[in-house]
Amino acid sequence: MPHILYINFNTGNTMNATLKTMLQHRSIRKFTADDIDEQTLNLILQAACNGSTMGNMQLYSIIVTKDKEKMKAMAPLHFNQPIATNAPVILTFVADFHRFNKYCEYRDAATDAYSNLQSYHWAVIDAIIAAQNACVAAESLGLGFCWLGTITYNADKFIEALQLPKHTVPVACIAMGYPDEQPELTDKLPLEALVHYETYNDYNKESIDWLYTEKEAHENTKKLLEENNLPNLARIFTERRYTKADNEHFAKVIETVMKRQGFL
Amino acid sequence: MPHILYINFNTGNTMNATLKTMLQHRSIRKFTADDIDEQTLNLILQAACNGSTMGNMQLYSIIVTKDKEKMKAMAPLHFNQPIATNAPVILTFVADFHRFNKYCEYRDAATDAYSNLQSYHWAVIDAIIAAQNACVAAESLGLGFCWLGTITYNADKFIEALQLPKHTVPVACIAMGYPDEQPELTDKLPLEALVHYETYNDYNKESIDWLYTEKEAHENTKKLLEENNLPNLARIFTERRYTKADNEHFAKVIETVMKRQGFL
Repeated sequence: MPHILYINFNTGNTMNATLKTMLQHRSIRKFTADDIDEQTLNLILQAACNGSTMGNMQLYSIIVTKDKEKMKAMAPLHFNQPIATNAPVILTFVADFHRFNKYCEYRDAATDAYSNLQSYHWAVIDAIIAAQNACVAAESLGLGFCWLGTITYNADKFIEALQLPKHTVPVACIAMGYPDEQPELTDKLPLEALVHYETYNDYNKESIDWLYTEKEAHENTKKLLEENNLPNLARIFTERRYTKADNEHFAKVIETVMKRQGFL
Repeated sequence: MPHILYINFNTGNTMNATLKTMLQHRSIRKFTADDIDEQTLNLILQAACNGSTMGNMQLYSIIVTKDKEKMKAMAPLHFNQPIATNAPVILTFVADFHRFNKYCEYRDAATDAYSNLQSYHWAVIDAIIAAQNACVAAESLGLGFCWLGTITYNADKFIEALQLPKHTVPVACIAMGYPDEQPELTDKLPLEALVHYETYNDYNKESIDWLYTEKEAHENTKKLLEENNLPNLARIFTERRYTKADNEHFAKVIETVMKRQGFL
């Protein structure tokens, strides 16, 4: 029996503390005044830096923001979301080939092998693995967090604010602290919507209707439709939250950043 | 006291089961013949699908490969790594805007708002968050796994093999099963190499030397240098493992894929 950790808990199922943490995840946007002490932050950072990584190159850096002045200066780049200044700690995860290139430079190895779109993917993936590990670790310690998608919108300005060198791109930004709210679990699509067996099982009108039934019937959705005076959730996304014009504007920003940082 | 989960364990520190799992992570490449039963796989998939996601759009799909014939057919795309056929389950995580676009189509919303490089980033990030959640969940259940970076190398051919539609790109591939080996923990860079406070703390010859000391002195590194007859680890990467020519070749593949799939 090799599965020494594969323990049956109380109820005869395989639920454990880690799964409970992950299945109770919800974003937290309000934090208490409590700071995150050094030992706790260190554990989170250690977990972040112990994830899988391409060829063990660890192609990421983490910028810890605790300085309130720094947070305030960056708040406009996060479109002044309150958590951009209210969280005790913000962790920015940077896809980073700069350190590895420096290592190559000082060991007389080629320094131009990783200035391309394939290498960019490795670094982005490494950075997100680290970020998600940090999130799970934080929740296991009773912390809450919210991702700030604005980091890729304004990547150019964050590069300046965080003094990031060439061959780095910030790709994840997580505000964390002790929860001062306990929102309901977010409505999610059923597993059937997300999981395919062997090959991609394409969607049609009927399956989309069925898979989105619960989400569309959700209290939050109804509230959103009223507030926005729109007939369905899809149009809230395309006409309010993430419009074509905005997305194409920010696509140009990230494309320029990828070029300037040496990946495209 | 809001931190109800912030428990001090035995030794007066904050270590818990989740952190222990994460800090003991190592890639597993040899699996027992044991299958992953449906309940266990379901828990892993549920954890995967409960992570943070851009605007709660859940911009990913997961393809479960269990069919050995299918694995064998895809093995060459994974450069015939043994785990590509020896694992009982392979999970492929796909950055997926197709489902959301379909939803928009059937709700008379715009279907061209997310055909751009910014939206691509959201979907890639969502897919990797889901993938890493699956990994942590799997390890908490006693499973082991290894990421197959080959998924982005041969993304074009995986799209064909998995019958992925436009607006999807496979970005993570994880072979998992019950461990039939217990390798040592991988040597990692010290936290000081990866974590910066407030702004990026650039590297110089002295700091690189210091930060890579342990890695360069590691038994595995010495073995690699002998095997490759090369003077240092950097040159093993640039001259053997991930060469400029290979990387640039595979950069063209992913660039073509991103264009053809409607993101660039």
